[in-house]
Amino acid sequence: MKLKLSKNAKLYKTEALKQIFAAIASPNIISLAGGVPSPDSFPIELIRKLSNKVIDEHGAKALQYSKTAGIDEIRETLADWMNERYDMKIKCENVMITTGSTQAFDLFGKIFLDPKDNIIVEDPSYLGALWGFDPYRPSYITVKSEADGIDTEELERKLKMYKNVKFLYIVSTFQNPTGRVIELSKRRQLVDLANKYDFLIIEDDPYGYLRYEGDPVDPIKKFDTEGRVVYLSTFSKILAPGYRIAFAVGNERIIEWLCDAKESADLHTNVFGQYLVNEYVKGGYVEKQIKKIIKLYKPRYKVMLSSLKKYFPKDAYWTEPEGGMFCWIELDEKIDTTKLYKKAIDHNVAFVPGVHFYAKRDTKNTLRLNFSNVSEEKIKKGVRILGELI
Amino acid sequence: MKLKLSKNAKLYKTEALKQIFAAIASPNIISLAGGVPSPDSFPIELIRKLSNKVIDEHGAKALQYSKTAGIDEIRETLADWMNERYDMKIKCENVMITTGSTQAFDLFGKIFLDPKDNIIVEDPSYLGALWGFDPYRPSYITVKSEADGIDTEELERKLKMYKNVKFLYIVSTFQNPTGRVIELSKRRQLVDLANKYDFLIIEDDPYGYLRYEGDPVDPIKKFDTEGRVVYLSTFSKILAPGYRIAFAVGNERIIEWLCDAKESADLHTNVFGQYLVNEYVKGGYVEKQIKKIIKLYKPRYKVMLSSLKKYFPKDAYWTEPEGGMFCWIELDEKIDTTKLYKKAIDHNVAFVPGVHFYAKRDTKNTLRLNFSNVSEEKIKKGVRILGELI
Repeated sequence: MKLKLSKNAKLYKTEALKQIFAAIASPNIISLAGGVPSPDSFPIELIRKLSNKVIDEHGAKALQYSKTAGIDEIRETLADWMNERYDMKIKCENVMITTGSTQAFDLFGKIFLDPKDNIIVEDPSYLGALWGFDPYRPSYITVKSEADGIDTEELERKLKMYKNVKFLYIVSTFQNPTGRVIELSKRRQLVDLANKYDFLIIEDDPYGYLRYEGDPVDPIKKFDTEGRVVYLSTFSKILAPGYRIAFAVGNERIIEWLCDAKESADLHTNVFGQYLVNEYVKGGYVEKQIKKIIKLYKPRYKVMLSSLKKYFPKDAYWTEPEGGMFCWIELDEKIDTTKLYKKAIDHNVAFVPGVHFYAKRDTKNTLRLNFSNVSEEKIKKGVRILGELI
Repeated sequence: MKLKLSKNAKLYKTEALKQIFAAIASPNIISLAGGVPSPDSFPIELIRKLSNKVIDEHGAKALQYSKTAGIDEIRETLADWMNERYDMKIKCENVMITTGSTQAFDLFGKIFLDPKDNIIVEDPSYLGALWGFDPYRPSYITVKSEADGIDTEELERKLKMYKNVKFLYIVSTFQNPTGRVIELSKRRQLVDLANKYDFLIIEDDPYGYLRYEGDPVDPIKKFDTEGRVVYLSTFSKILAPGYRIAFAVGNERIIEWLCDAKESADLHTNVFGQYLVNEYVKGGYVEKQIKKIIKLYKPRYKVMLSSLKKYFPKDAYWTEPEGGMFCWIELDEKIDTTKLYKKAIDHNVAFVPGVHFYAKRDTKNTLRLNFSNVSEEKIKKGVRILGELI
């Protein structure tokens, strides 16, 4: 039988990455490839306690069908949490729960994208978001990432060239893959540009809580004057990814449209997880847990930076992020990191070749290294082997 | 700010149904509208036990990222369960977990539907599936539902008329909304037609386990000879909907394509729920729970049938299903049940007007009544009031 697929079906294939993830499943591999939190960070006893609390206090309600936007309790808790953390004025109606931020990318595609619509992404950008948008066949406008975040001059040049941009997608803090942070004045500038050139900003912030050095920066959403910024975050990195509890914060009309699309995507996100995360935040456990995670990741991050310095060639460039889970490396232009990857696997080390993070897949000499889910010893060894291979 | 929506965005709007669901949220309303299991059926103490078992035995694994198709454990358990229940030969690779069956409809749209592609649905059909397919702008071919399931003669006539049908979507047992069961010989016939006219069958079976009378019928999937049937089921009706654990069983190539689409839809379904449902099935609790649910729903179903007989006009037709959660009613052609609904709400009774279950929204004189989540007393009262209004 020949399958009669849709024209879009092939846009969902991510063969190269499947091979990478298959390779890193082997226990012998030192994987600097993943983007996965360390299981050592999971607060298992707390989760047992909160699970039982959810069953005691909410029982059948935590097991029944629920609203597409999420249970009212968690929407209120998250609004309060954002308001307290960033001195903002978010209301319950501005918050929706998504099944991972991955789902939010798909919902944005459904509600905002027709084929060939212009959207702007950084170069490089988070590959999961690109996968989410790709099947909607947008025209990508790429803007260079600089040490202090997206190049806003290039951005405005391109906004003048390309009319009718639907949205800018950007990871604002400890970007995936570079680890970079958009500097404060640029954040205000992005909002000004969105107002002036009439587009939305999807601000993705899964890593902002994981800061090892330096001072926190307010989210772009805080400077939003016209309801153009939709802020995405998740409990995947600060509790556990398995529950798939993420959230979007935006103007009420946009949230309603995204919920309309979510209704036929999965009706609602798992309710038990929503109640559990609600207890986690409301109970004040989250700040303590973030401290625990930082204590675990910070030495790993230090070892990665010192190992890069020790083992990588002098003409290599790498980011020295103040937080998050990744370092980003640019090698001599002659080096194709997809080829390097094959050699590295033969030496039992894995990473993600940078090409997957470019919307146009047009840059070959970069790579992403993860330090959150690897021991210090393995980071040192892995980086040393990579350095030798380069 | 004017939102620059996609052309598809409006296809996600379900305003009429939102109003219905808002109305039934009122505690004064006798709601025969929902499609929701009774919370009295939820085995809360068992869920506490299994939650703690998952934490004890799987710990961090139940909290971490996982495979898009679902954890291997549950895929194997479900394959075994299907094989034992229906004497089939399903393998792990044939099974994937979806975030509710709702997600499966969307994934089928992504992988198989281009605008104007022909798909076949029954008239009437499950509205959630229609919502899932609608945004992909298919051409619906509708085929009449008969007392023993879809009219296979009309189906073949239409298959000769319309070339290139992508798939037939059908609820095989205790259909939503009619409660009807496709009779055995018709099931074999559907597979023959699929082979002959080269289309897929999406067999949706959320209610088949809830049989109050009569003998079970094997799923269409059992008679599949060329891997054309994808069987969908869910734990929403036989454990609890809140976990959003549903599954698809199909030929490995189709499952792989659906997983490719799922990867950018939500990466994977919540892992904790998957481990919990795995323990639920593997531990042999499911058959006991089904018996408990049947014991709860059967008297409600009896009362609904006897109340219809007592209070509804003689020229009304209704189905007398042997299981499931719904009865379906056809009134005099002059009655518009959307108008009846407004009157009923004034008298504190709700139902779902049948028009929403027709792909072309072209039939006005039908309605769906639910009995799973209403007490016997309220069923009697609700049906009496409706009878009087009609």
